[in-house]
Amino acid sequence: MTAIFKTLTDVRNVMVALPGAHADAITGAEARNGQLTKPPGALGRLEDLAIWYAGWRGTDRPVITSPQIIVFAGNHGVAARGVSAFPPEVTEQMVLNFQHGGAAINQLAKTFGAKMDVHALSLDTPTEDFTQGPAMSEHALCAALQTGWDAVDVDADLLVTGEMGIGNTTSAAALGHALFGGDASDWTGAGTGVAGAALDAKTKVVADGVALHSAAGDGLALLGALGGRELAAMAGAILRARTLRIPVILDGFICTAAAACLEKAHPGALDHTVAGHQSDEQAHARMLQALGKAPLLQLGLRLGEASGGALAIGVLQGAVACHSGMATFAEAGVSDA
Amino acid sequence: MTAIFKTLTDVRNVMVALPGAHADAITGAEARNGQLTKPPGALGRLEDLAIWYAGWRGTDRPVITSPQIIVFAGNHGVAARGVSAFPPEVTEQMVLNFQHGGAAINQLAKTFGAKMDVHALSLDTPTEDFTQGPAMSEHALCAALQTGWDAVDVDADLLVTGEMGIGNTTSAAALGHALFGGDASDWTGAGTGVAGAALDAKTKVVADGVALHSAAGDGLALLGALGGRELAAMAGAILRARTLRIPVILDGFICTAAAACLEKAHPGALDHTVAGHQSDEQAHARMLQALGKAPLLQLGLRLGEASGGALAIGVLQGAVACHSGMATFAEAGVSDA
Repeated sequence: MTAIFKTLTDVRNVMVALPGAHADAITGAEARNGQLTKPPGALGRLEDLAIWYAGWRGTDRPVITSPQIIVFAGNHGVAARGVSAFPPEVTEQMVLNFQHGGAAINQLAKTFGAKMDVHALSLDTPTEDFTQGPAMSEHALCAALQTGWDAVDVDADLLVTGEMGIGNTTSAAALGHALFGGDASDWTGAGTGVAGAALDAKTKVVADGVALHSAAGDGLALLGALGGRELAAMAGAILRARTLRIPVILDGFICTAAAACLEKAHPGALDHTVAGHQSDEQAHARMLQALGKAPLLQLGLRLGEASGGALAIGVLQGAVACHSGMATFAEAGVSDA
Repeated sequence: MTAIFKTLTDVRNVMVALPGAHADAITGAEARNGQLTKPPGALGRLEDLAIWYAGWRGTDRPVITSPQIIVFAGNHGVAARGVSAFPPEVTEQMVLNFQHGGAAINQLAKTFGAKMDVHALSLDTPTEDFTQGPAMSEHALCAALQTGWDAVDVDADLLVTGEMGIGNTTSAAALGHALFGGDASDWTGAGTGVAGAALDAKTKVVADGVALHSAAGDGLALLGALGGRELAAMAGAILRARTLRIPVILDGFICTAAAACLEKAHPGALDHTVAGHQSDEQAHARMLQALGKAPLLQLGLRLGEASGGALAIGVLQGAVACHSGMATFAEAGVSDA
């Protein structure tokens, strides 16, 4: 299915028709899992992961051959309010670093054999300061969702989405606060490294933005009001992957915030996703819990760029390799319990 | 350094002369880490891992090209006491499965590009029942340590040791209890899947063994009294890796129990090792804590075979790839904070 997003109604029309996993493949994968040469359950979460992956790929013995990592970059009006330890020009500088292969995500993509794409979204036109009005118009939001939608390789068999954008933990914190309640301070953290008075100011920006936009509407409307182009693009890519039944590994706080907008707009929209890791950004644990997603890794990362999600590709590759490559008790002539 | 182990004195002579990490390489790697294009500390534990690895490899910009996984198999006298959900012949059947490429560890070795070796240690001569006397004579212990020592590829740049042996969680539980105290029930768990009266009986076997051998001596002496050939071989391999400055990823409960014997015999003997994962076998968390080792992964695995350690190879590969491959702020023209 392809789609052209002109208004949010077009996006909502896609969301009400999302495909589910293949029930037969799940049943087949569960049966196979029970016959493999290991004590029942001894591979722990790897077993659940492989069965989940099999269901979305529609085969009881899947392989991963073509993982895709997409990094979206955007600039934020709120960056002018001193919410980051780095200046806004770093967004564009890091895009060049991605293109030249010098960032962390480039090394991780190479390590796990993933194709990596970078999309910079209108970097010289930051979103509006969301404490003054909506970050994006409906038109700008739809364009960013479309960029994400179009960025997904239809031949990929696994997707990791990530981001770069000075100021975007502020946007993600505002989305967390607006989507899940609590206090602004519950959702606002250090980002690239703010503390003390700067963190207090960041928290106030989040509180002010959410106060202004609390009645904006559903998750998609909030994504436009408080989000950023790179967040919307991640949401668009995650949605596109769902229509193609490509499983997605979520990255950290900002990626999860973008994904959460989909889940809030349409419960179940993230069933084809797994949480790659729990970031050290303080509110990520809270957000994952709110979504009912248990992270695969917890290694204190707080970089973004899809880095934690990329690292989790290795876990999923291991899980699927075991599931599809192991001998059964009968094949190996091993006595069952 | 090569060594021939005839008596435990030979082993102890090796242990008092273990090399440390290269201080210059650590300093150089720390300096490099501070210049890479990311906020300080944003790669979390990956940064510590890369610096640790650099120290042992003696270069501030290391690469991992030749990981080795070794699986040792042994049979246990205590298996006759019904401590496992599987019959003892499964040890040999699984060795064939390893050799034919059908086990979980074969798939994981392939996934992470590791060479995999299997060593079966005198499978038709199980160790003695340790509730009746020492599991192994000093001669048998030294032979098993030597097998592990000789199994390490001197050209490997990373080692994961694992095991297969019906009955060996009982041996590991007894070692945990003898080395670290507490109650037998603190250290005795489900293994391949025992519960209820069978678990009670297993716990009593552990308690009886430790009561009989509590005065056996240091960690090496306890390894002989309560261990198994595959545990001793893992210890020998870990020791050999240290003399070659090859970093080691520990696997689960049984591997960690074998390693703990070295640490108790000579504190610091495990400085070149990292805990690959925390197993679902209940006492593994306790043992890791006693050793001060934080696991890289926690995915509910309880298979052994080096499987959890192998999965963690991906994490270490990612860490080292980031450290050695990323551009610095100066190289990339990115503004620092």
